[in-house]
Amino acid sequence: MHLDVGNALASVAKPGVTEAALERLDARVALAHERIEQGRTAHEHGYEALNLPQRTDAAEIRDAVSSLTDAEAVLTVGIGGSALGAATISTALGIENAYVLDNVDPEHTSAVLDNLPLDKTAVNVVSRSGTTVETLATFLIVRDAMETAGVDWASRTLVTTGDEGPLRELANAYDLPTLKVPDGVPGRFSALSAVGLVPAAIMGGDIEGVLEGGRDAMESLSGSLFDSPAYAYGAIAYALDLRGARINAMVPYAEALEPFAEWFAQLWAESLGKDGMGQTPVRALGATDQHSQLQLYRAGPNDKLVTLVRPRDREDREIPETDAEELAYLSGNSLGDLLDAEFRATEASLAAANQPNVRIELDRVDAEGIGNLLYQMEAACVLAGELYGVETFTQPAVEWGKRAARGLLGGGDFEEAQAVADKEPYWIQ
Amino acid sequence: MHLDVGNALASVAKPGVTEAALERLDARVALAHERIEQGRTAHEHGYEALNLPQRTDAAEIRDAVSSLTDAEAVLTVGIGGSALGAATISTALGIENAYVLDNVDPEHTSAVLDNLPLDKTAVNVVSRSGTTVETLATFLIVRDAMETAGVDWASRTLVTTGDEGPLRELANAYDLPTLKVPDGVPGRFSALSAVGLVPAAIMGGDIEGVLEGGRDAMESLSGSLFDSPAYAYGAIAYALDLRGARINAMVPYAEALEPFAEWFAQLWAESLGKDGMGQTPVRALGATDQHSQLQLYRAGPNDKLVTLVRPRDREDREIPETDAEELAYLSGNSLGDLLDAEFRATEASLAAANQPNVRIELDRVDAEGIGNLLYQMEAACVLAGELYGVETFTQPAVEWGKRAARGLLGGGDFEEAQAVADKEPYWIQ
Repeated sequence: MHLDVGNALASVAKPGVTEAALERLDARVALAHERIEQGRTAHEHGYEALNLPQRTDAAEIRDAVSSLTDAEAVLTVGIGGSALGAATISTALGIENAYVLDNVDPEHTSAVLDNLPLDKTAVNVVSRSGTTVETLATFLIVRDAMETAGVDWASRTLVTTGDEGPLRELANAYDLPTLKVPDGVPGRFSALSAVGLVPAAIMGGDIEGVLEGGRDAMESLSGSLFDSPAYAYGAIAYALDLRGARINAMVPYAEALEPFAEWFAQLWAESLGKDGMGQTPVRALGATDQHSQLQLYRAGPNDKLVTLVRPRDREDREIPETDAEELAYLSGNSLGDLLDAEFRATEASLAAANQPNVRIELDRVDAEGIGNLLYQMEAACVLAGELYGVETFTQPAVEWGKRAARGLLGGGDFEEAQAVADKEPYWIQ
Repeated sequence: MHLDVGNALASVAKPGVTEAALERLDARVALAHERIEQGRTAHEHGYEALNLPQRTDAAEIRDAVSSLTDAEAVLTVGIGGSALGAATISTALGIENAYVLDNVDPEHTSAVLDNLPLDKTAVNVVSRSGTTVETLATFLIVRDAMETAGVDWASRTLVTTGDEGPLRELANAYDLPTLKVPDGVPGRFSALSAVGLVPAAIMGGDIEGVLEGGRDAMESLSGSLFDSPAYAYGAIAYALDLRGARINAMVPYAEALEPFAEWFAQLWAESLGKDGMGQTPVRALGATDQHSQLQLYRAGPNDKLVTLVRPRDREDREIPETDAEELAYLSGNSLGDLLDAEFRATEASLAAANQPNVRIELDRVDAEGIGNLLYQMEAACVLAGELYGVETFTQPAVEWGKRAARGLLGGGDFEEAQAVADKEPYWIQ
């Protein structure tokens, strides 16, 4: 990963970071790096995520999926961290026919199941606890649909879960292939494990390359932000947030990185959104959102860091000649030339409006590239968490709603469900 | 549309709006409504959008697409407002095989074209000026791919454009069916015209119902926010922004409304993101993003309005029985019950954390429902623009980048392109 922070400096941007501030911040980065290294080597909860590229055994995953590699489609049933990493990696690897059910919308669930060749589909169920209500309810429906279609669901299903719980029991009862959600790693940090790699492995993707990219990123961490892109990104995002950039717009210029932006949004929001702090991640897509969000990013409040991401190399496609004089200048350019010109133009247009932005480049959107990018962003997030001083690896605020929903569905007596009933509506209609 | 603002009141939320403040705001809404009505009846630029449900001629659209209704797939080539309304309506109507090329990513463009049955695909090219560089470059590639595949592209292509320009000339030269981008209506406000309705019309969708929903919404506007959901939404979003809710998270609890959230993001950002003002729209999806964004929305900064959207009715699907004791309470509930319990629980969990939120309900995600919702949100946006005092219907800030990109591609001498070249990078790698 290559990071250019020129347009985040105070000489260009408002808010911006001075080079003197970066020097001061670097002393804190050095201490944070020590803390992170200590956590990582001692396999502490959360920090353990940074060991995954070494710890994850690709051969074990290949072995577990071996009975499913004849599948024409793979359906992942999971939600949040149990789905986004898998979607990100599958899409970056260009794998077609990798589907995800990560919601409990009945119409959408039916539409997906109606369109899948169930007898040729591998089902990948992911939940650490084995009790995630959305995942289990959806899996029950998928299993039922397969039975109804006369498909032996047990021969088409792989389970990734913890050592205990209903999913583990189910796997034991039906002798399903299983993989383990790694201990000590929160879901949103688990992409570089079975959690993120199974769909790609089933469809023959280069999961070894993904892990190799992660290992390369691992080696690039150092005690100074000036030679660690991950730490530089985390530190600068933090510094800009404190100076007013409350929003972090993640804008890849590659459709294959669209799920990456979604994955990043979870990583950033759930890890850092605590104690009244936390940048709000916004997902966008270049060049498309130049025709949607750019007006706001340039002329709206100076409260955003715009993170522009692009691959240095990609398969290109020539633009055919046109008879329209107005567009004659396009001839001789490729679609990739156009996309890159728009990338550079957008970056400069933000800078010209003093809106802070940084550029992230990966060599290519491929196995090594995505593995590297995911690891770097995780390290950036862990570093930022150290600087904010928050509990990066927990997500306590979501428990209230889980208890309320359970109470509403008759799953026990919870005071939160009562609070739902006590709402005072104010209708306008 | 039904709007419940109970959780945006100061008795619940911080920031929140007092009822006294709403009363004061209502006087400004009355004046703004007069201005809007004046603009609408005089067919002024932009305000004219609010006439579309009456002005758009569904029969004319049906007639224009009549040679294409045997298509098995429709491919829209457009960007921004020329794509998002069409995607929103097609998806809400449950139309399958409606594709959009709204980016210039060469790998993605090739992947889409490789997977389409080109001889059975209708191509819908949309650009008011006929010079939108992304749209024209993509169309040249699509046309070339069809020719290479031996498909008579001219018999499969419809053009929606203005009275003049390269696309109009092309349509004349090849005798293509054409429809007109309505005068006086910016792209992001044009969903309820040919711009948004053509793909649905080609695939046999109920475009008359969409317009009917729009007309119902039109009749619901009045000079008081207390009985106009559209104006109430616009006024409260504005009032909360001024009180600190700088972000507007749009969270539909229906997969079929996911493109709607994207459409809304353009509407809100491009219309109101001006003069250093404008709420930043964030797209999310319930229940999925409870496992991604909710931690931040509850425990992060009090700088968000969360807009929760759900249909009152939908096709449901039972959850089969489970042998896992821990999940036995799910039996007897449907997937829709689960989704709705999560909706109410999330709403209450935000309120319990004093985070302002509003609830929008539509009767159903269908033709009338989406037509109504789109119109209401457009009216809300126009009203908010009046309150902010911005030029709602322009997007001047995007021109800089367009000139820069054109210069970089050899399309002329532009000082903006020089500014791009002058960037001072600061690499960390």
